[in-house]
Amino acid sequence: MKSAHSYIQEHKERFLNELIELLKIPSISADSAYKNDVIKTAEVIKTSLLKAGCDTVEICETPGYPIVYGEKIIDKNLPTVLVYGHYDVQPPDPVELWDSPPFEPVIKKTELHPQGAIFARGSCDDKGQMYMHVKALEYMTNTGQLPCNVKFMIEGEEEVGSESLSWFVERNQDKLSNDVILISDTGMIANDIPSITTGLRGLSYVEVEVTGPNRDLHSGLYGGAVANPINILTKMIASLHDENNHITIPGFYDEVDELSKEERAKMAEAPFSKENYTKALAIEDVYGEAGYTTNERNSIRPTLDVNGIWGGYIGEGAKTVIASKAYAKISMRLVPNQDWKKITALFKSHFESIAPKGVKVVVKPHHGGQAYVTPIDSMGYQAAEKAYEATFGKTPIPQRSGGSIPIVSLFEKELKSKTILMGFGLDSDAIHSPNEHFGVWNYLKGIETIPQFYHYFTEIHSKQ
Amino acid sequence: MKSAHSYIQEHKERFLNELIELLKIPSISADSAYKNDVIKTAEVIKTSLLKAGCDTVEICETPGYPIVYGEKIIDKNLPTVLVYGHYDVQPPDPVELWDSPPFEPVIKKTELHPQGAIFARGSCDDKGQMYMHVKALEYMTNTGQLPCNVKFMIEGEEEVGSESLSWFVERNQDKLSNDVILISDTGMIANDIPSITTGLRGLSYVEVEVTGPNRDLHSGLYGGAVANPINILTKMIASLHDENNHITIPGFYDEVDELSKEERAKMAEAPFSKENYTKALAIEDVYGEAGYTTNERNSIRPTLDVNGIWGGYIGEGAKTVIASKAYAKISMRLVPNQDWKKITALFKSHFESIAPKGVKVVVKPHHGGQAYVTPIDSMGYQAAEKAYEATFGKTPIPQRSGGSIPIVSLFEKELKSKTILMGFGLDSDAIHSPNEHFGVWNYLKGIETIPQFYHYFTEIHSKQ
Repeated sequence: MKSAHSYIQEHKERFLNELIELLKIPSISADSAYKNDVIKTAEVIKTSLLKAGCDTVEICETPGYPIVYGEKIIDKNLPTVLVYGHYDVQPPDPVELWDSPPFEPVIKKTELHPQGAIFARGSCDDKGQMYMHVKALEYMTNTGQLPCNVKFMIEGEEEVGSESLSWFVERNQDKLSNDVILISDTGMIANDIPSITTGLRGLSYVEVEVTGPNRDLHSGLYGGAVANPINILTKMIASLHDENNHITIPGFYDEVDELSKEERAKMAEAPFSKENYTKALAIEDVYGEAGYTTNERNSIRPTLDVNGIWGGYIGEGAKTVIASKAYAKISMRLVPNQDWKKITALFKSHFESIAPKGVKVVVKPHHGGQAYVTPIDSMGYQAAEKAYEATFGKTPIPQRSGGSIPIVSLFEKELKSKTILMGFGLDSDAIHSPNEHFGVWNYLKGIETIPQFYHYFTEIHSKQ
Repeated sequence: MKSAHSYIQEHKERFLNELIELLKIPSISADSAYKNDVIKTAEVIKTSLLKAGCDTVEICETPGYPIVYGEKIIDKNLPTVLVYGHYDVQPPDPVELWDSPPFEPVIKKTELHPQGAIFARGSCDDKGQMYMHVKALEYMTNTGQLPCNVKFMIEGEEEVGSESLSWFVERNQDKLSNDVILISDTGMIANDIPSITTGLRGLSYVEVEVTGPNRDLHSGLYGGAVANPINILTKMIASLHDENNHITIPGFYDEVDELSKEERAKMAEAPFSKENYTKALAIEDVYGEAGYTTNERNSIRPTLDVNGIWGGYIGEGAKTVIASKAYAKISMRLVPNQDWKKITALFKSHFESIAPKGVKVVVKPHHGGQAYVTPIDSMGYQAAEKAYEATFGKTPIPQRSGGSIPIVSLFEKELKSKTILMGFGLDSDAIHSPNEHFGVWNYLKGIETIPQFYHYFTEIHSKQ
């Protein structure tokens, strides 16, 4: 019987070409102009799941983009793994900063990816990592080594808040019943330092609009006499952090789950080089909340970042205008115990309260999700740990991620099962950025490691 | 011999239609996409000046857009009036806020313009006001009533800093020699309260760029750990005003010409209704520097306004990104004695000095100009006063404007003559804004008043 490694070597080219075809479709869920491409991508996923061995695959309609659901049930008495992933991608802009077009995948070698990396929007987040599971299933079915039941749930709105997924999960609890949820939508520390993400931050995403005069004004005739919405917006945003970069929204930290000295000490063991970190980003120094390390600031601490700002004249040349309106998109990353709906409400009331007379402020809540922590003593985590040991020859490090997968906490609530986050990307893969890429080695290593998880999970489960 | 009034009534329709044709050309100097339209406009001005009676008209090439120069010299011993205006216009955006397309002029009645107003970009600033002078010349030549020599200098870069004009004036001092410079590029208090602008603010316009990480980053993986260029930019801009809305740039106020109690008391006599002011702009209250009235804040006090700001994701939907760069266009209105180049240098060094580690800041000076004050005892002012008395039946009020016409102080320096600012627009004409318009009554009243200025100026001049 073939080992995963030899099977992968034999089919390597095809595995890469199939992914490259998938990456050519601009499935940008945030921009309605790409609606047809998003839907087309769901069709491609359906076909690939059937080819990989699923007994049935459906494209399930939702209020938003469809969810591709597939399953292969080999024995009701065996455990069931539910694989989650998403087929939508982030917008590629600023497109001009890409070295190659975001939807024309190319494989290039990089310092961290000597065997080459696939450059394309979605290559790592999440088409590439999701497709590892499809190919892992193909290997297990084609070689008669699928040890348990498997279900796939691949959505198309992860980058815009997964609203339809929540709707779908709440209505399909039986269909989605499982013993463990497996997701590859995170990263690992390095190719020689495997890690499993045990924590995710929550998210609250809002858009704010500041309106001053009812029309754009000549900055000479009115300058100095009326509140300039852009100046006011900068004042309001600036006031959201104090001199120690603590967030000033009253009540913001009330529910924050503070880690113990021991936990922080354990975290501090993870390898980190400030020199490499700042060098990789070409910044002179790191910047953040006083009293916390860089690894803590981007994982166990809540944050507030402006993701976009615009107002007034932003074209070529000069325009001496006082804009009528100014806007910003602001997101807050949250930590365990912070409720995203409560934080959104706190932000809204605070931001509206600090607006001076002379402007009107509107805060539009966009989307959000709760933070999550996976216990490392769970069956799933134990199986994942063994799987990495089998393919990497090393015990993976449990790590908290600063990112958010809003639906993970929803899964636990609705489906009563734990989620295992087996990510094979690297922080430097530039997800959400120009030149996003995913290592060929990582892609194939994922396909090799996933079947090991099925194997060990089934084994551990049978012993319960 | 025909009076101006009857001549105007007779040719009213044609005067309006000629202006409307001129307004249809989108001569946007700030946007190179409209280059051909700007140049075409110069040609139209040339033709109209020849038709109006100029002996010679040339299109003078410059490093930038051409300057239309025309003249009619009737007697070397008579005084010469130099008319300045500009044929370029501000960009029309935000276009979606226009009730009718900015370059498809329509005449509509408004509360302040019961006889109708021409709605189009440039109708008031400055095509409409500039064209009043062309039609006034036509009247004077056609009726044999031109009392002195006249020169026209109409440029195409006023909205972007008049760089080529400076270049041109410095090289053509003899050609442009004159006894008074006449400009209609300002406003008056109301149709029943004629006023002459005696002061203009200076300007310093800069663009700033804040760069953080070398690429856009995922706000989850990096949020809280690196300086977010947009957050930093808002902090830096917010810090430019203190709690009393004084500008915090060291040395900014050092050269400011403070007005005496008497001057401020005289200014306070100009009619002003805060209720009407705030109502017209739909704002709850005015906003500005502590210790000064609204009329002072927008005329005798320097200001700092953000004219545009942009960075990160500003498209539809949400993107959880930390942008690599954030930008703003910032302009400062200056008052007499402040040197715009010195202020620009002060801004640059201060803004760069307040940047925290972790971002790089670039300040690009854009353009600027000095403030200006016209003495009311000058021949030109006296002649203008009589001209308004003749056509409005009222003595005009001298008023300081908050706007800037950067080249006025250059004229005085290079051409050694005073400038008279006879403006016929209203503050509510929305120049630089959507739905810019110019009253039909104001347009015709200007054509009627200008010949009176020529008459009285020649008369007063002969008595010297």
